[in-house]
Amino acid sequence: MCGIFGIYGHTQASYLTFLGLYALQHRGQESAGIVVSDGREVHAHLGMGLVSEVFSPEIVAKLKGHIAIGHVRYSTTGSSHIRNAQPFLTRWKKGYLAVAHNGNLVNSLSLREKLEKDGALFQTTLDSELLIHLIVRSRKKDMVERIVDALSQLKGAYSFLISTEDRIFAVRDPHGFRPLVLGDLGGVPVISSETCAFDLIGARFLREIEPGEIVEIESKGVKSYHPFKKVKPSYCIFEFIYFARPDSWQFGGSVYITRKKLGARLYEEAPTDVDMVVPIPDSGNYAALGYALRGNLPFEMAVIRNHYVGRTFIQPSQEVRDLGVRVKLNPCRDILKGKRITVVEDSIVRGTTSRMRMRTLREAGVKEIHMRVSCPPHRYPCFYGIDFPNPRELAANIMGIEGIRKFLGLDSLYYLSLEGMLSCMPEKGEHFCTACFTGDYPVKPEEKVDKFILERR
Amino acid sequence: MCGIFGIYGHTQASYLTFLGLYALQHRGQESAGIVVSDGREVHAHLGMGLVSEVFSPEIVAKLKGHIAIGHVRYSTTGSSHIRNAQPFLTRWKKGYLAVAHNGNLVNSLSLREKLEKDGALFQTTLDSELLIHLIVRSRKKDMVERIVDALSQLKGAYSFLISTEDRIFAVRDPHGFRPLVLGDLGGVPVISSETCAFDLIGARFLREIEPGEIVEIESKGVKSYHPFKKVKPSYCIFEFIYFARPDSWQFGGSVYITRKKLGARLYEEAPTDVDMVVPIPDSGNYAALGYALRGNLPFEMAVIRNHYVGRTFIQPSQEVRDLGVRVKLNPCRDILKGKRITVVEDSIVRGTTSRMRMRTLREAGVKEIHMRVSCPPHRYPCFYGIDFPNPRELAANIMGIEGIRKFLGLDSLYYLSLEGMLSCMPEKGEHFCTACFTGDYPVKPEEKVDKFILERR
Amino acid sequence: MCGIFGIYGHTQASYLTFLGLYALQHRGQESAGIVVSDGREVHAHLGMGLVSEVFSPEIVAKLKGHIAIGHVRYSTTGSSHIRNAQPFLTRWKKGYLAVAHNGNLVNSLSLREKLEKDGALFQTTLDSELLIHLIVRSRKKDMVERIVDALSQLKGAYSFLISTEDRIFAVRDPHGFRPLVLGDLGGVPVISSETCAFDLIGARFLREIEPGEIVEIESKGVKSYHPFKKVKPSYCIFEFIYFARPDSWQFGGSVYITRKKLGARLYEEAPTDVDMVVPIPDSGNYAALGYALRGNLPFEMAVIRNHYVGRTFIQPSQEVRDLGVRVKLNPCRDILKGKRITVVEDSIVRGTTSRMRMRTLREAGVKEIHMRVSCPPHRYPCFYGIDFPNPRELAANIMGIEGIRKFLGLDSLYYLSLEGMLSCMPEKGEHFCTACFTGDYPVKPEEKVDKFILERR
Amino acid sequence: MCGIFGIYGHTQASYLTFLGLYALQHRGQESAGIVVSDGREVHAHLGMGLVSEVFSPEIVAKLKGHIAIGHVRYSTTGSSHIRNAQPFLTRWKKGYLAVAHNGNLVNSLSLREKLEKDGALFQTTLDSELLIHLIVRSRKKDMVERIVDALSQLKGAYSFLISTEDRIFAVRDPHGFRPLVLGDLGGVPVISSETCAFDLIGARFLREIEPGEIVEIESKGVKSYHPFKKVKPSYCIFEFIYFARPDSWQFGGSVYITRKKLGARLYEEAPTDVDMVVPIPDSGNYAALGYALRGNLPFEMAVIRNHYVGRTFIQPSQEVRDLGVRVKLNPCRDILKGKRITVVEDSIVRGTTSRMRMRTLREAGVKEIHMRVSCPPHRYPCFYGIDFPNPRELAANIMGIEGIRKFLGLDSLYYLSLEGMLSCMPEKGEHFCTACFTGDYPVKPEEKVDKFILERR
Repeated sequence: MCGIFGIYGHTQASYLTFLGLYALQHRGQESAGIVVSDGREVHAHLGMGLVSEVFSPEIVAKLKGHIAIGHVRYSTTGSSHIRNAQPFLTRWKKGYLAVAHNGNLVNSLSLREKLEKDGALFQTTLDSELLIHLIVRSRKKDMVERIVDALSQLKGAYSFLISTEDRIFAVRDPHGFRPLVLGDLGGVPVISSETCAFDLIGARFLREIEPGEIVEIESKGVKSYHPFKKVKPSYCIFEFIYFARPDSWQFGGSVYITRKKLGARLYEEAPTDVDMVVPIPDSGNYAALGYALRGNLPFEMAVIRNHYVGRTFIQPSQEVRDLGVRVKLNPCRDILKGKRITVVEDSIVRGTTSRMRMRTLREAGVKEIHMRVSCPPHRYPCFYGIDFPNPRELAANIMGIEGIRKFLGLDSLYYLSLEGMLSCMPEKGEHFCTACFTGDYPVKPEEKVDKFILERR
Repeated sequence: MCGIFGIYGHTQASYLTFLGLYALQHRGQESAGIVVSDGREVHAHLGMGLVSEVFSPEIVAKLKGHIAIGHVRYSTTGSSHIRNAQPFLTRWKKGYLAVAHNGNLVNSLSLREKLEKDGALFQTTLDSELLIHLIVRSRKKDMVERIVDALSQLKGAYSFLISTEDRIFAVRDPHGFRPLVLGDLGGVPVISSETCAFDLIGARFLREIEPGEIVEIESKGVKSYHPFKKVKPSYCIFEFIYFARPDSWQFGGSVYITRKKLGARLYEEAPTDVDMVVPIPDSGNYAALGYALRGNLPFEMAVIRNHYVGRTFIQPSQEVRDLGVRVKLNPCRDILKGKRITVVEDSIVRGTTSRMRMRTLREAGVKEIHMRVSCPPHRYPCFYGIDFPNPRELAANIMGIEGIRKFLGLDSLYYLSLEGMLSCMPEKGEHFCTACFTGDYPVKPEEKVDKFILERR
Repeated sequence: MCGIFGIYGHTQASYLTFLGLYALQHRGQESAGIVVSDGREVHAHLGMGLVSEVFSPEIVAKLKGHIAIGHVRYSTTGSSHIRNAQPFLTRWKKGYLAVAHNGNLVNSLSLREKLEKDGALFQTTLDSELLIHLIVRSRKKDMVERIVDALSQLKGAYSFLISTEDRIFAVRDPHGFRPLVLGDLGGVPVISSETCAFDLIGARFLREIEPGEIVEIESKGVKSYHPFKKVKPSYCIFEFIYFARPDSWQFGGSVYITRKKLGARLYEEAPTDVDMVVPIPDSGNYAALGYALRGNLPFEMAVIRNHYVGRTFIQPSQEVRDLGVRVKLNPCRDILKGKRITVVEDSIVRGTTSRMRMRTLREAGVKEIHMRVSCPPHRYPCFYGIDFPNPRELAANIMGIEGIRKFLGLDSLYYLSLEGMLSCMPEKGEHFCTACFTGDYPVKPEEKVDKFILERR
Repeated sequence: MCGIFGIYGHTQASYLTFLGLYALQHRGQESAGIVVSDGREVHAHLGMGLVSEVFSPEIVAKLKGHIAIGHVRYSTTGSSHIRNAQPFLTRWKKGYLAVAHNGNLVNSLSLREKLEKDGALFQTTLDSELLIHLIVRSRKKDMVERIVDALSQLKGAYSFLISTEDRIFAVRDPHGFRPLVLGDLGGVPVISSETCAFDLIGARFLREIEPGEIVEIESKGVKSYHPFKKVKPSYCIFEFIYFARPDSWQFGGSVYITRKKLGARLYEEAPTDVDMVVPIPDSGNYAALGYALRGNLPFEMAVIRNHYVGRTFIQPSQEVRDLGVRVKLNPCRDILKGKRITVVEDSIVRGTTSRMRMRTLREAGVKEIHMRVSCPPHRYPCFYGIDFPNPRELAANIMGIEGIRKFLGLDSLYYLSLEGMLSCMPEKGEHFCTACFTGDYPVKPEEKVDKFILERR
């Protein structure tokens, strides 16, 4: 996954983008980058690591200009190289183009092959570079038309920020897989993957960029285009379940409130009679609150997080993940010993992480563990930007639900029903992509991308 | 504050100490160090920064031996230098001595001046180095007697780990200001500032080291000495309020449960009629849970933490603290807008951090804010190891309670009473040091220490 | 300036390229890079700094493959960024292309503008990237023809190494401005800017790549093409005067011996009656030896070099250069006091460095200083790859020869005549480019290149 | 070996000390440090690596004060740790003491054991720390008397700089093993291991500190003490042969001129009839010049040094040394092919380095090689500060002279005679320590020191 942020017309553009990326850090921790323009010259800084590691105050101060776009990245293809950092910046006949991308195209390999046949050269395997080539090669004159021309060849999930010396374009694919929101900071337009970035910089949330919409921001103001035929939206439901920050608003609703609803529905579908409801920090917190409230059960934050480690799901290797789990969360024995508890999880992917957690709960003396998961079992890959493991490694495919229950050593296990989950959404259920649960893909995937190795230090 | 950890007789001593320090990271983030012995040779590694920054797998692997002690440090004197990293290691006529310290002596300057008159040389201003000089200069023959001789000259708060080539001594001052616990890892004795480190490595908590007790660990086993006259204990009550991890057990009780009791008592003393109880992460979580449960009020985790920043209280400069607050916590507008809330805080020191938080709550649309603090107002300095600001900078001294209420822009503000706080403690109230609230110092402070500047890279 | 190195068909290709670049380090200290291919996959590593800083044994070991090209760079355009490191690697429809360049094109801007009009995107302002675009866009089928097609559009100075997955092409421009030599390492072909790299790896020098020649190396062996109309060569005479290493052979002769001849001729043109001849380390050493030998004068290495600093000419800022001079060279007072000396210099550019040196010689008690310079005065810019300062900053243009003599505080000053210099060359004088002395440019310069700023860490 | 530098009473004391250490870099490359005092407070900065790596302009600027001493170190004991960096700084009852040392004591272990019995604690195994303990424990009142008291217990080679808040003491042992010189910078006293540091900062060389002399520098000026009974000096002759910089003056004479004399004498003892004399850079340069001049033979700098590597002798591991040789020096084939040459070396230690050099000369086509060495064969260890290998590893002991000749593949080999060497010295031959050649130790060695491992980062 990735996070993107842009701002147009502020003297502190790079600093505000730095803060914006900071708020979006949960969407990608592998690399970060900012491209800034003063209307004529363009400067960029990109690096591997957290936003706070890549950018120092000195570096941000050097990025002068009033137009900025930024990006945080978590690799969806496995290779961890500085050259894959975004925004992708290049020079063409009319000046500069920078692109930041959240999502994943499903026809990038065939598009690249076609372009290469026409003489295009590629520095990376990034969808952002692909988009730039398409824009540059378009025979249209106007930049908006060029972008429309380029986008019309893309299939898949994308929220793009495109910046020239003097304009920013914000684009969301016709299905609207990934979120993208528009805000206002004292008259200055800002764009972000999530609204939580607006809160941090004190901006006001105006509205979501609509699926298929192109927003053009320039000195005269903000214009909106809807060049594509309207299709049924396919919002990524996993953004609500797990990915987005609880303090964000997306796809027509509050993440926090939606998660609480999922928890309440979970209780309705599968109530438990226990001494307490225990969330697994941090993504399970809100569904657990909803579950406890609906069931009038005591809520206890009995699994303690060590704040000196990062987010589990978003770490590269299995070894690190295993250690990460052991080090990161500790059950509080004094409150758990001899108790019957309900654990609320947001998802079970491989099951290995959950298994270790359940084991430590047992070691802490928990008598009964009932697990409730706030979504259905994951069974299919995501081609739209979330890096799930190979379906053959997914617990639900390997062992089935009862198998998982035994594997985790649970007294009971229940996954929220598809209907239940969809009923909690702020928009119609059919407007959400549920492919990872159902295998029902709104846009057919085409192929996997190749690798290309180049390291710069 | 500091955290200390020791283990005797394990082939993976340095790795387990590394993990132990990891679990104690919340007690100090400035520096970390481990001294390990194989019975004859002693190796040490110390560095500035977090445990995970100072130690790599390669470094830990090089620290061979079965006896190890470790230390994490947050400077109480303001100077941030590698030379202040602990354990402090030195060579004397009988071999090696390493000392790790949690606490603060109140007569260190006069002791050092006395020793310097006798020809002692000091490399640091650490209490650990002072202790070593006293041990070495003692005329007693036996090491236990030397340690007793040395300790009898110390005044103040200390939990020490002292290691020679073949023994570890664990010491707690007669008042027992700082915690120190003994555990067992499959027959191998382990010692830690807090029990949460035992959980991480899978050790069993046996008991607290008693105030005034010296525990000697060597190949034949564990011996205990009580050489000092028994005095009334003075456990640091702020460990319960704020410092210790909730999953630790200390001073006869569970931190988690004690904090919940504080919250419940807070409701009894000052109930509120609100839409929800909101904790300020993370230390206020448990008192808030207790408050909500006792008052049968909805509990909402409506202030969202960005997990890519460290703990506020434990950061050096005011600028960083200010930025930290803004960046670290975000109120979830969608759940808070138009609501009446009770915020539970663990303490208010300068008030500047709280003020910024309350302002962002108001910006998120909260209608009424009632603050409840789970301890009385801080008015006096701590001489026993906690780095409170100068009393003249404490909010309660500057503006009084009503002044704080206005300064924070609250609809109401209530501090838990001294009696209320003490009634929640797992031991008799008179066994706790409450000097920071009352100015009633169990051990009279003598002086401030000097500075000594030497930087090694 | 830059240095390039390539090897085809050795299991240790990347390690030998690392060593080759090491021997060519004097040609560029800003960045270094290696691209290696195993016949199918291509790997690259590039970084800022010295070869020994960019490459560790671990990194070299990871660069697996039997075909490698490498590059060391000193910026000719002033911007010091990792993106300007070479070889430049890209992907096109037929696979991979990597290019390493020594020289400077004089029509790169107009070529780039033309390509951009055709939809080309540029990541850098490197001539290497330009060449790749021209190769890729060529309508020819065969790679050799594509390269010929591309080269025929280039004007200026270039020695290129071009690598695909399974071939290396070595190219020298028709004027042969920059050196390029072919060697043999036990049957394995090697290519280098200078023969000194062959010595280091134990390879045998076979011959120089000829001006206008394209050498193709593939699994079946080495082929040679001469597609361009023969023109009069224009070997860079400054390679002999200053740039090349004395142990290299180029343009038909030995650098060492040529420099000695320059010194001997200098004595013939302007003899001195002094106590000793003193070289300014290190480039002046050999001309000084020749001067002393021809004049039967004692040779004294009386200016001592501190070996912990780099080469003066090749350092970026004026401040560093000033400090560099003071710190790097010290006259040996005991041998110089009261003496009349002849100093042999290889060139005077701005004169500021020489002035400081002469001042320190006077401070060391030298009575008379006669300076002899082993080339004529520099008056014109180089457009073929050497980064001389703006002509308005050249001492000879600012103050004239007598002015320089006074500025440096010399008793006499003599520059070698153009005829004298050319008479020492191993080939006909008219085969050398002397534009920096005469302003007579073999290939007309067209324009200056633009800047493009992007930093990756 | 080590280098020391001090200055008293200059506003730029730390910057000038930085420059002084820079000029002394050849005496030690492992670590560097500066201690500076403003008369009351003392600051220090120490680090691993070259002076230019340890000190940045920012760091030097922070070291405020007018009194400074500095140190560069090459480990004589093999352990490479930051804690062994000097100057060694400590606090005692009267303030601060810092000590920088060049040399090696032969009774340090017994002294330390004695002190430890008296309760002394040691942080390091440095002789500097030992000296401080002795000064502090002295019962004398006056600092000069304390220093005399302490020094009178030391045996071995030492040049010390001792600094308090307001004074510097410069001390040389009664045998004067190591050099130490006094200079003047516009009225400000400066002290250095070698005079080349004076040249760099523009100071005037006044005189050598005499063997057994204590120089006290304070605000009122410079005082001199000669408290010890006069003994015959034992100047380290290897300083003249190899260690000192050629532009230094020491032990009554110029290093440059003395080396030339050694070369001339070498010709007289063992003339050769060859085409040229070739020095091995850099230490062999001056003896080779003397040899060529005396024999009226052409002098050719035919072995080219790559300036991007450090000094061979002073590098830790054998592997690095081997690679170093291959990479660092390249014979110039064009001048050497088919020639008969005389190579002048300053010394042969293990012989492995020379062997590789001779092999590359043969590979370059040299027909005859006659080696002349400007000192007798090394056969014995040095206990006074030079880190020769174990005598069992010395070539002369392993294979004898004829064996070395064969091992190196020479046509002839000759070592300068002891008498010949001594006859070139600026003082009486009996005033020099020749123990490494003769085994005749002026001060009997007592023992080897122990190791003590502590790493700080």
